[in-house]
Amino acid sequence: MNNLIATSIKYQDDQLLVLDQYQLPHRETWLPCDSVESMVAMIRKLQIRGAPLIGIGASLLLARLAEQGVGPAQLESAAATLREARPTAVNLMNCLDRMLAALRSDGPAALPATAERIFHEDIELCQRMAEHGAELIAPGSRILTHCNTGSLATAGVGTAIGVIGEAQRQDKGIHVYVDETRPLLQGGRLTSWEMRRLGVPYTLICDNMAAMLMAQGKVDCVLVGADRIAANGDFANKVGTYSLAVNARYHGVPFYLVAPYTTVDPHCPDGSAIPIEQRAADEVRGVGGSFGEVVWSPEDAPVYNPAFDVTPAGLVTGWILDTGVLTTDDVAGGALTALR
Amino acid sequence: MNNLIATSIKYQDDQLLVLDQYQLPHRETWLPCDSVESMVAMIRKLQIRGAPLIGIGASLLLARLAEQGVGPAQLESAAATLREARPTAVNLMNCLDRMLAALRSDGPAALPATAERIFHEDIELCQRMAEHGAELIAPGSRILTHCNTGSLATAGVGTAIGVIGEAQRQDKGIHVYVDETRPLLQGGRLTSWEMRRLGVPYTLICDNMAAMLMAQGKVDCVLVGADRIAANGDFANKVGTYSLAVNARYHGVPFYLVAPYTTVDPHCPDGSAIPIEQRAADEVRGVGGSFGEVVWSPEDAPVYNPAFDVTPAGLVTGWILDTGVLTTDDVAGGALTALR
Repeated sequence: MNNLIATSIKYQDDQLLVLDQYQLPHRETWLPCDSVESMVAMIRKLQIRGAPLIGIGASLLLARLAEQGVGPAQLESAAATLREARPTAVNLMNCLDRMLAALRSDGPAALPATAERIFHEDIELCQRMAEHGAELIAPGSRILTHCNTGSLATAGVGTAIGVIGEAQRQDKGIHVYVDETRPLLQGGRLTSWEMRRLGVPYTLICDNMAAMLMAQGKVDCVLVGADRIAANGDFANKVGTYSLAVNARYHGVPFYLVAPYTTVDPHCPDGSAIPIEQRAADEVRGVGGSFGEVVWSPEDAPVYNPAFDVTPAGLVTGWILDTGVLTTDDVAGGALTALR
Repeated sequence: MNNLIATSIKYQDDQLLVLDQYQLPHRETWLPCDSVESMVAMIRKLQIRGAPLIGIGASLLLARLAEQGVGPAQLESAAATLREARPTAVNLMNCLDRMLAALRSDGPAALPATAERIFHEDIELCQRMAEHGAELIAPGSRILTHCNTGSLATAGVGTAIGVIGEAQRQDKGIHVYVDETRPLLQGGRLTSWEMRRLGVPYTLICDNMAAMLMAQGKVDCVLVGADRIAANGDFANKVGTYSLAVNARYHGVPFYLVAPYTTVDPHCPDGSAIPIEQRAADEVRGVGGSFGEVVWSPEDAPVYNPAFDVTPAGLVTGWILDTGVLTTDDVAGGALTALR
């Protein structure tokens, strides 16, 4: 495989390296990843995260294993293990399906080129989403976003943050409100880090403050990513997205999701069929990261900790895809199932 | 003054003592409070908190100063300083007004008895709210609450948590969803502690998960407290309350606030006239408490950190007061301005 370099993943000198997002923004540490077990552990701990990026990471790992001489049966088994690492995000399944199709038709030798195509394609998809989305951003817009959807979540400029970066590049004079995104704080830790890198003026808030900003007329639109889009336009994304969508509707604020076609699951009829990953109670009882670990709740406090929630299509103003922006009518007419 | 004992404040052997809520739930430490400066610092750091309780605490301190021979002019000045400590919560102003009226008509010697009346009255007010509110709680109800409104926030059983405790005492088989309440985590730290003391089954969630629970039909009603209620029924409460109210309306979930008449500000026409306290950026960049301090965001991240938000009367199902439950029609008819 040729060298492949992105903000948070790289394949260089025959080694797959992952920027450890658990340690951001305090430390920028690259970790080697050379086994299925290591990749699964990194996905579970969110050291590598973002629906598009985990699909790319898993593909690059399979390609690397193929280069090292691992045979077809073991590659199939590796793909099956990787597939279970994050049940909600469908990009992982989509990427693995492409890798397995190549494996089955052309053998292990076909995997490096397929993984490279997936990597480069993601960069192009991000750029197209960014351009389509930026057309919707009026000059002076104040944009609210949730979780992290930038160069840390993809091989390219990102999904929702890709749109933000492109609007900034076009000097639209935007301002971004960053939801901190409890419990794992991808907004406070990662999106604030990306805003600074992009030179975008931003304000960090707690998730529960977004509604107040909308009531004050300070939010012109909401941009979020997606982990899986069902055929009817319902979508799963980081928990907290649904509350934003309800508030956006109540306040008349346009609400867009930004995602590549690889996030669409045409076999999933609606949001109720999307599996939602439940995570450990300790994530809600406190916080942990390279910055330290603290527990503020009773150590035996019973907790509910879904990693994602589902927003129904009826609350979405537009689906910003690499192919263009779909409206409610487009989606109702089956546009999502007709992609690719 | 006679001895006065509550869960989180006591006057005992001529000493005013405050349970340091900054250290809960990990350590139960009682701190002496013998000066205006000390009380203001404790209010600012939320070592003593809860709209009713800070009014009681300030009154007990003035009474103690009067017993120590402090003269009328200094007591007036002390009251003026205390009044500034928490601009949003009106109970503080209401209690100080009662203390000042007693001072002006009967001199410093009248303050201990007035403070004692305020203390005992709060216990009675809590009990009445609890009984009125519990009538609204159907058997098996799943109640969602925000921030902390219990025996840590009042001299009695609390406001919203008072209702929860009474429903539990009546064996209604309730379950409580506790919003952790970023940024200062009064839900995660304090309400979970109170639920355990009351023996109420509960589940701790991040604030952004409440909407998802409502969409799943798992929330039968929302109960919150208030820091100030305007004449038209709009009210200020801990930031995040407004987002819950919007979501409750969207999902058809009844939304009640629970507060004593001392929280009503008849001179405040509507929510736009309620001053909102802005707090330090570091509270959003990380967390701090007796459990430790961590910062996960860039240390210079720009932050918006309002301590409260305003919920319009139109989103409230009922105002549970010590005098009974007011409906939207009651409030529109001026019932709040007619109290006492």
